[in-house]
Amino acid sequence: MSVSEIAPNRNGVDVPTLFATLDAVRAQPELARFRFRSDHRWVSGTYNRGSINGFYGAGQDHVRDRTTVVEADHPTVLVGKDHAPTPAELLLNALGACLMSGLANIAAARGIDLDEVTATVEGDIDLRGILGLDDGVRNGYEGIRVVFHVKGDAEAERLAGVVEQSRRRSAVYDVVTTGVPVSVSVAVA
Amino acid sequence: MSVSEIAPNRNGVDVPTLFATLDAVRAQPELARFRFRSDHRWVSGTYNRGSINGFYGAGQDHVRDRTTVVEADHPTVLVGKDHAPTPAELLLNALGACLMSGLANIAAARGIDLDEVTATVEGDIDLRGILGLDDGVRNGYEGIRVVFHVKGDAEAERLAGVVEQSRRRSAVYDVVTTGVPVSVSVAVA
Repeated sequence: MSVSEIAPNRNGVDVPTLFATLDAVRAQPELARFRFRSDHRWVSGTYNRGSINGFYGAGQDHVRDRTTVVEADHPTVLVGKDHAPTPAELLLNALGACLMSGLANIAAARGIDLDEVTATVEGDIDLRGILGLDDGVRNGYEGIRVVFHVKGDAEAERLAGVVEQSRRRSAVYDVVTTGVPVSVSVAVA
Repeated sequence: MSVSEIAPNRNGVDVPTLFATLDAVRAQPELARFRFRSDHRWVSGTYNRGSINGFYGAGQDHVRDRTTVVEADHPTVLVGKDHAPTPAELLLNALGACLMSGLANIAAARGIDLDEVTATVEGDIDLRGILGLDDGVRNGYEGIRVVFHVKGDAEAERLAGVVEQSRRRSAVYDVVTTGVPVSVSVAVA
């Protein structure tokens, strides 16, 4: 596809800048090194507060104008106070968000206008794992299902292809399906 | 530890109810079957909105009084509008929240009063993976580090033991380190 064929703003995506960014990273791969971060503070019981702001990437530190606070708690049926969603739900949210975030870029690059995209992420979990009641039951989800509904100016097969490509390039999908090394340590005060 | 030795409310945890809940699930394991859910809607470009409310668990459907909205976007350096954190940051948030949520229950069960707990979760990622610029680079994080600071009425080793037990019983830590099967499908409209 030549540059003249690319709509400058399709699906809210600045397509020329997107391609220019890809070229810049291709020429200078160290721009692709990012370090993301989330800070947490315990409040009471299962209730706690996460804050997201700064990150490192494209060769420099970035500080946003505002900090996003995401709280977590357990529901009353799990002896929490239900002030906020459970961390297990926040994990599903991160997965759905990642699959959604790539979609419009891919559709724009393929010349597809999107009208409406929704998705539902569901996960089944047997809490005997985290409750320590059965060592044969894992702590995490047994399985997660994501179902998309996509409306756009392309036939069903091409719209499904956009979702499939988003899955193939999703950071969170990769981590959630494959796993990643995590170190947990306690700093001495 | 006999029931008479258990403080009824330590660290904001209703300890007798916590133990009663464990007994109830032990007697009726099907109460432990939960299905969590997150709903998503594309807004524009990389910007999208997730909603968390209802879940199934302990034998019934639960609907909360309010829906929690968690938005996601890409930063401008990644050709987004930076309306919200990236999904990759939301994943770190879910992990930190899960390790935090279990902590006070474990401390309470061990008779430890917590004063202050904070944690930082950091992840390193090479975006050449999701940008499709190098097939040898994975889409997800290369590694994630969690560092806790814990203050409480116990020696450092016992406080570290609370964090370690929270890690051993964390649903999100399990998924993020080990992976889980995820199906992604597109429903025909």
